Amino acid sequence: MPKPRIEASTDVIVKLAKTTICGTDLHILKGDVPTVKPGTVLGHEGVGVIDEVGDGVQSFKKGDRVLISCITSCGKCDYCRRGMYSHCRQGGWILGHTINGTQAEYARIPFAETSLHRIPEGMDEEALVMLSDILPTGYECGVLNGKVSPGATVAIVGAGPVGLAALLTAQFYSPAEIIMIDLDDNRLAVAKTFGATRTVNSGKDSTVDAVMALTGGNGVDVAIEAVGIPPTFELCQDIVAAGGTIANVGVHGAKVDLHLERLWAHNITLTTRLVDTVTTPMLLKTVQANKLNPSQLITHRFKLENMLDAYDTFQRAAATNALKVIIEL
Amino acid sequence: MPKPRIEASTDVIVKLAKTTICGTDLHILKGDVPTVKPGTVLGHEGVGVIDEVGDGVQSFKKGDRVLISCITSCGKCDYCRRGMYSHCRQGGWILGHTINGTQAEYARIPFAETSLHRIPEGMDEEALVMLSDILPTGYECGVLNGKVSPGATVAIVGAGPVGLAALLTAQFYSPAEIIMIDLDDNRLAVAKTFGATRTVNSGKDSTVDAVMALTGGNGVDVAIEAVGIPPTFELCQDIVAAGGTIANVGVHGAKVDLHLERLWAHNITLTTRLVDTVTTPMLLKTVQANKLNPSQLITHRFKLENMLDAYDTFQRAAATNALKVIIEL
Repeated sequence: MPKPRIEASTDVIVKLAKTTICGTDLHILKGDVPTVKPGTVLGHEGVGVIDEVGDGVQSFKKGDRVLISCITSCGKCDYCRRGMYSHCRQGGWILGHTINGTQAEYARIPFAETSLHRIPEGMDEEALVMLSDILPTGYECGVLNGKVSPGATVAIVGAGPVGLAALLTAQFYSPAEIIMIDLDDNRLAVAKTFGATRTVNSGKDSTVDAVMALTGGNGVDVAIEAVGIPPTFELCQDIVAAGGTIANVGVHGAKVDLHLERLWAHNITLTTRLVDTVTTPMLLKTVQANKLNPSQLITHRFKLENMLDAYDTFQRAAATNALKVIIEL
Repeated sequence: MPKPRIEASTDVIVKLAKTTICGTDLHILKGDVPTVKPGTVLGHEGVGVIDEVGDGVQSFKKGDRVLISCITSCGKCDYCRRGMYSHCRQGGWILGHTINGTQAEYARIPFAETSLHRIPEGMDEEALVMLSDILPTGYECGVLNGKVSPGATVAIVGAGPVGLAALLTAQFYSPAEIIMIDLDDNRLAVAKTFGATRTVNSGKDSTVDAVMALTGGNGVDVAIEAVGIPPTFELCQDIVAAGGTIANVGVHGAKVDLHLERLWAHNITLTTRLVDTVTTPMLLKTVQANKLNPSQLITHRFKLENMLDAYDTFQRAAATNALKVIIEL
C-alpha cells in the first residue's frame, strides 16, 4: 500500500510499531461485514510514532509515541460531547472498516487529538496495544455496564481475549466470585491464573446447575456475555439472579430469544454497547500503577512479513492456544 | 367468604372501604395464572380501616385508615433489606394470588407494618387506591427504570391505566416530549389531557416513521413498554435511540425476539421489573402536594354487590372507555 497522506487538518499519520488482529478482522475476512470494501487495510489497534501532523493539530508533534484507539472521535458532535464516542457522527469504528486501518507500516488517523493517547515515558508500548480495543471493551461493555461491585457474584461467558479483559478489569471492584465459563479447558486454565475464582466447562458440565450450586440457587448478580451467539445469551438469561444485570459484550449476527414471559418480573437490567473507549486514559493509569497487566493477554509475536502466519495462528486459537498475537513492524 | 382471622402476630385485618380491578385479575379469570387456586378472593389494591391487629403489630391500631400495597414485604429478608420488596422471600405479590385478596369486605394483610401505609389526615382515600399498584408500577418500572430526565424524549407504548400512570409520573422530571402510542383514539385523547405532548395511533399510522419524524431521525431516549405483547416490544426496539433505554412494564406471556444483531452496538439499556412499591411513601407526598392527581384515572364506580358489572365494564374497556373502576364497600 502507498504511504497514506494527510487529508484533513485534524489528521495525523502514525508510523506503526506494533499492531494486532481482532476477532472482528476474522469476521471481515469471512464476509460478515459488508461495509468493508475489498482492498481496505484491516486493523483498528496499535501503537506507533507520529510521522506527520495536519495543520490543525496542536497537541501532538512528529516523534510523539501514541496509542491508537479503535474508536475515532471528532470530539464535537452530540454523541462525543456526552462521552459516547462509539456513535460519533463522523467517526466511531472507522479504522479498518470504512477507511484503511492499522495493519500496515503507516496509518492515517482522523481527529487525531481526540482519537489518540500519548504514551507516557517508560511504558511498555507492546502491552498498550491491548488498550486499543479489548481492554476498554471488556471493561466498559462488561464491567461498567454490568455494575460489577464489591462482594458481587459475576459470571463471564466466554474466555476469549475480551472475556479475559473483562475478568482482569472486573477485579478493580473486588467482586466475591468471578465464574468463568467456556468450552475450552486451556482458556479456563488461563482464566484461573488471571483471577477467576471458579471455572465451568460448558461443554462438559450442566452449566446452569453448576452456577446455581455456586450461588445458593440465586444466580449471579452480573452475567457478562462475551461470545455473541444465541446459546450463550440464553445461558446468561438462565443464570442471572433477580435484580441482576446481563451485560452484552459479544458481537451478534442474529436475533436472540428474550424470555420476557419469565424475566418481566425478574427485575433485571440488560445492556448493550459498542465500546466508547472513554476509559482509555483511566486504563492507562491502572497499567502505570501496576493494577493491570495487559501483556498477559499476548501469546504470540510475528513480524509484519509473516502476517499470514499471524492470522492463521489467531484463527486456529483452539489448537494454537492463541489469545492476542502481536505484529511487530 | 367468612371474615378472615389473624394467623400470625404480624398480621392485621383490614375492613375494606374501596378496592379496584387490575388487568392481572382478568388474566387470572382467563386461567393465565395457574398459581391462583380456584376459590381465591382476587384483588391486590384497596384502602380501608384496620379492624384487628396481631400481637406483634406496634405501629398500627384498630381504626387506623390504611392504603394496602399490592406487594407484601416481610421487611427482614435480603431482598426487602435492599428495597426489592417484589422478591420478598415470604411476600411479594401474594394478595389475590397465593392468599385471599382485597375484593371482599375484609382482608388479612401479612407483615402489616411493612406492607401498609397510613393515610394522612384529610386525604381523599378513593384516589389513593391508585397508589396500591398502578402508580408505583408506572413510576418504578417505567419512569425510574427508564431514567426519564429533564429534556428527554419519551415514548410510552400503551395508554392503559399503567401507561397513563407512567405518563403522569414521567412529568415529575420535565421531559421535553412524551409521545403516547396506542390503538385506541379515546385513550390517546385522555393521554393528551394528562400531559402527552404527542400521540400516535399505531393502528392507523406508521408508528416508527412517525416517531422518527418527531425525533429528527434519532429515536427516543426512553421507550416504556406498557402492553406486554411481542409487537409492542418490537416497536420499542425500533424507536429507541442509540444510548437510550427500553423500560419494560408489560406483563408478558410469551418470549420475544431481541434484535441483538442490530442492538449489540446500539448502547441501549433494557430493564424489567415487578413493582417493588418502594416509592409509595414518596408518591403519597406528591399527591398531598398536588403534584399528582390519581383520581383522573378513575372512570367508573360500583357497589360491591354489582361486582360482576364492574368486571364487565373493565373488561370491555374499548367500548366503555373504562380506565380504573372503583368498587365501594
